[in-house]
Amino acid sequence: MSCIFCRIIKGEIPSFKLFESEKTLAFLDIGPLSQGHALVIPKFHGAKLADIPDDHLSEVLPVLKKIVTASGAVDYNVLQNNGTIAHQEVPHIPKPNEKEGLTIGWDSKQADMDRLKALCEDIKSKM
Amino acid sequence: MSCIFCRIIKGEIPSFKLFESEKTLAFLDIGPLSQGHALVIPKFHGAKLADIPDDHLSEVLPVLKKIVTASGAVDYNVLQNNGTIAHQEVPHIPKPNEKEGLTIGWDSKQADMDRLKALCEDIKSKM
Repeated sequence: MSCIFCRIIKGEIPSFKLFESEKTLAFLDIGPLSQGHALVIPKFHGAKLADIPDDHLSEVLPVLKKIVTASGAVDYNVLQNNGTIAHQEVPHIPKPNEKEGLTIGWDSKQADMDRLKALCEDIKSKM
Repeated sequence: MSCIFCRIIKGEIPSFKLFESEKTLAFLDIGPLSQGHALVIPKFHGAKLADIPDDHLSEVLPVLKKIVTASGAVDYNVLQNNGTIAHQEVPHIPKPNEKEGLTIGWDSKQADMDRLKALCEDIKSKM
């Protein structure tokens, strides 16, 4: 039971709760990137998004929408990382100006269309 | 009808489709940040996440999970930006190594706990 999110869900670690349902918890990040930086997490212990059951996943974005709307945020980033932490994380981070909030490195490449088509077929064949 | 996503949904612009349902479309980005960079979009024209109906939002993450699982991506970023483009966007971007994929500026601050508590109460009061 060293998972920090499970401990927050159980109330062993206090949090500034914004919303709670049977399957979802939302609270303010105590190390915010900008005012209103919130976390929306499913109440299910799993390392990555693909480990979370669909009925938990389907609640996340509607809850996030509820919070965004209530917070009055106009511009905002939604981010969910997989690979460095031990529990699902979906922060909602307002972007009040260019300096505050999330900055993103977007070094996109020109795609090879034949390779892209082959990749598309490959992924589809596994679904 | 100048919305590029609406035109992709209608088939006026071709795309490498990975998945399609009544409410959701997923396809490969033609300017990928890394191999497997996909877009999962609701079939609803709206500027930002908070403009999209809940029944469309709830499908997005389960569809994304389906694609992640099929693609075999181990580490990946999920990102949804609001404020610069004219339609909902939820890319799924694999992170194969430190140089490829999404880089993130995370300049977090130490929060003032009293202000954080007041903000929490303020947002909750509006839900």
